[in-house]
Amino acid sequence: MRTRAAVALEPGKPLEVMEVNLEGPKAGEVLIEIKATGICHTDEFTLSGADPEGVFPAILGHEGAGIVLEVGEGVTSVKPGDHVIPLYTPECRQCASCLSGKTNMCHAIRATQGKGLMPDGTTRFSMLDGTPIYHYMGCSTFANHTVLPEISVAKVREDAPFDKICYIGCGVTTGIGAVIYTAKVEIGAKAVVFGLGGIGLNVIQGLRLAGADMIIGVDLNDGKKEMAEHFGMTHFINPKNVENVVQEIINLTKTPFDQIGGADYSFDCTGNVNVMRQALECTHRGWGQSIVIGVAPAGAEISTRPFQLVTGRVWKGSAFGGARGRTDVPRIVDWYMDGKIEIDPMITHTLKLEDINKGFDLMHAGESIRAVVLY
Amino acid sequence: MRTRAAVALEPGKPLEVMEVNLEGPKAGEVLIEIKATGICHTDEFTLSGADPEGVFPAILGHEGAGIVLEVGEGVTSVKPGDHVIPLYTPECRQCASCLSGKTNMCHAIRATQGKGLMPDGTTRFSMLDGTPIYHYMGCSTFANHTVLPEISVAKVREDAPFDKICYIGCGVTTGIGAVIYTAKVEIGAKAVVFGLGGIGLNVIQGLRLAGADMIIGVDLNDGKKEMAEHFGMTHFINPKNVENVVQEIINLTKTPFDQIGGADYSFDCTGNVNVMRQALECTHRGWGQSIVIGVAPAGAEISTRPFQLVTGRVWKGSAFGGARGRTDVPRIVDWYMDGKIEIDPMITHTLKLEDINKGFDLMHAGESIRAVVLY
Repeated sequence: MRTRAAVALEPGKPLEVMEVNLEGPKAGEVLIEIKATGICHTDEFTLSGADPEGVFPAILGHEGAGIVLEVGEGVTSVKPGDHVIPLYTPECRQCASCLSGKTNMCHAIRATQGKGLMPDGTTRFSMLDGTPIYHYMGCSTFANHTVLPEISVAKVREDAPFDKICYIGCGVTTGIGAVIYTAKVEIGAKAVVFGLGGIGLNVIQGLRLAGADMIIGVDLNDGKKEMAEHFGMTHFINPKNVENVVQEIINLTKTPFDQIGGADYSFDCTGNVNVMRQALECTHRGWGQSIVIGVAPAGAEISTRPFQLVTGRVWKGSAFGGARGRTDVPRIVDWYMDGKIEIDPMITHTLKLEDINKGFDLMHAGESIRAVVLY
Repeated sequence: MRTRAAVALEPGKPLEVMEVNLEGPKAGEVLIEIKATGICHTDEFTLSGADPEGVFPAILGHEGAGIVLEVGEGVTSVKPGDHVIPLYTPECRQCASCLSGKTNMCHAIRATQGKGLMPDGTTRFSMLDGTPIYHYMGCSTFANHTVLPEISVAKVREDAPFDKICYIGCGVTTGIGAVIYTAKVEIGAKAVVFGLGGIGLNVIQGLRLAGADMIIGVDLNDGKKEMAEHFGMTHFINPKNVENVVQEIINLTKTPFDQIGGADYSFDCTGNVNVMRQALECTHRGWGQSIVIGVAPAGAEISTRPFQLVTGRVWKGSAFGGARGRTDVPRIVDWYMDGKIEIDPMITHTLKLEDINKGFDLMHAGESIRAVVLY
């Protein structure tokens, strides 16, 4: 079949919207009509050429929602008509990672997915002249139709609006999941969020959902304060206005009973390795946990004195919020539909596929939290 | 009263054995007759002058066992005749740290202990001319008699031999506790121990106790292999003999089902920050945990790419093995008496107090695992 897609022909150039060929699903694969897709910084990272694993031409996009049109041989968990969210972190439920019960990082198709290929080592997309077009993060949601492995789709309820739940395919789950699945924040905790962009806002609402008492947001831009408060932030620190962010957080979290101070949990949503260090060092002696979510530039390293760890702090990271896609994503959709979490105020712009490059411009300008393309 | 002690008069000089004055216990304090004490690298660290918190003159030693002779006003948890192990990490059971249930790092008396003082800000020891002598790590077990806060003594069974259980006051608990309380290693785990000195051996027997399947030891000295095998090591790697220790461990831990490989848990017992990095990076993608136990030189920093954390590895540390002294130390003494853990082969030398400097020489020469002073 043919479908319409925004194709990344080469790094550093705008996407080009064009007709492309799409082969139908092979065994264990699913053909999906994408109804909506978010534009994420990770797409931008790859499009810019900074991603060492980036291959071109490719159809980017990894934050979508749509409807199953056709299933390949042996597919049993979804059927035509099902509403689904594509998963860049699959959940095969059979590999050593899935069966460990300790991680969401399924490795069933990691080798091929990392190369922009389907599990059989080929692509389903091609240019009209036959040139193969690479898949991206196993999703390629910047196409009106796409093919994914069965293990890479989460079946969700049919009354949920595509233009909102597409954001659960990456940003929402990454932020909320880091709180709930990675950090396992408990009621009454004190937490700090560094960076109040889309991921940071979702961490904040994850903390509210988890019952945190104190939710401190840190951002260089005062303009982020209002929206962050809407999502549950209780205290705001602009590093420009204080001498030492770490000490400020320690002081803010002290109580008459606890004169040590420090956050129970901290989350880095900046990708800045210096901020990651602050995020670790502002946590509480004895039990503070710091979760790295942001993606650092290639080659950048985090550092600290080991004393920070020996005195009880824990440094960990989170990918896709530690969520198991097929198991947890449908529950997060339920939380949205039940009003436990909000998405609507974060979808600041909707665009047509023709205007997708405008979505990247809005992101660069810091004007959007999330721009969503509607097909 | 007067007692005999090995006094550190100034940094970098041998200890001097002499008579000193010792005041009796004040309210909430306990007078103890020390029966045996180990000589630990931490004593050496302070004696050398490298410890920025070191104060002189001081009575070092923090790995002892003895008998309560007298208790101060209000002391209820021990009485004269009780056998006890002094605790450099107290357990007040009333501070925010103790009550958090998340850490063993009681901070009830931290400020004064760090300065070599009793909780009331004074010392009990003095030279015969009246010059105060500082306490050390709240213990000062290089004296035949010492005074400690009640919250800094663990009451233990009376049939346990002092010359062995003194080692539970630091090394044994640090190693075994890091496995059991900090890492919470589960049956069937694969683990790596970097550095096969006294702490490393205790980590190894902790792993055996926890039911680990694979216990890999890493040391530059082949001579450490035999003793480590005695305590449960199943595989040995000498970094001199392999191209890349991290890759070697990953290969060794791969299975037909799990082709990713990596240790479930790793423990640094070297204090070398480069080894700490290897210890993190050899752990399994998705869930590997690396525990820093070794004490790094002042100012040294650990580093890694944040990608190591984002892909599921956890970096943490352990102090006194995460053990709550009054609660957990008596149980570890029971484990020794029940034959669940071994101590005897690690006590390689016993000395009289007069010969305590010989114990430091043996440590420097790498000839002792643990030298113990018997009073």
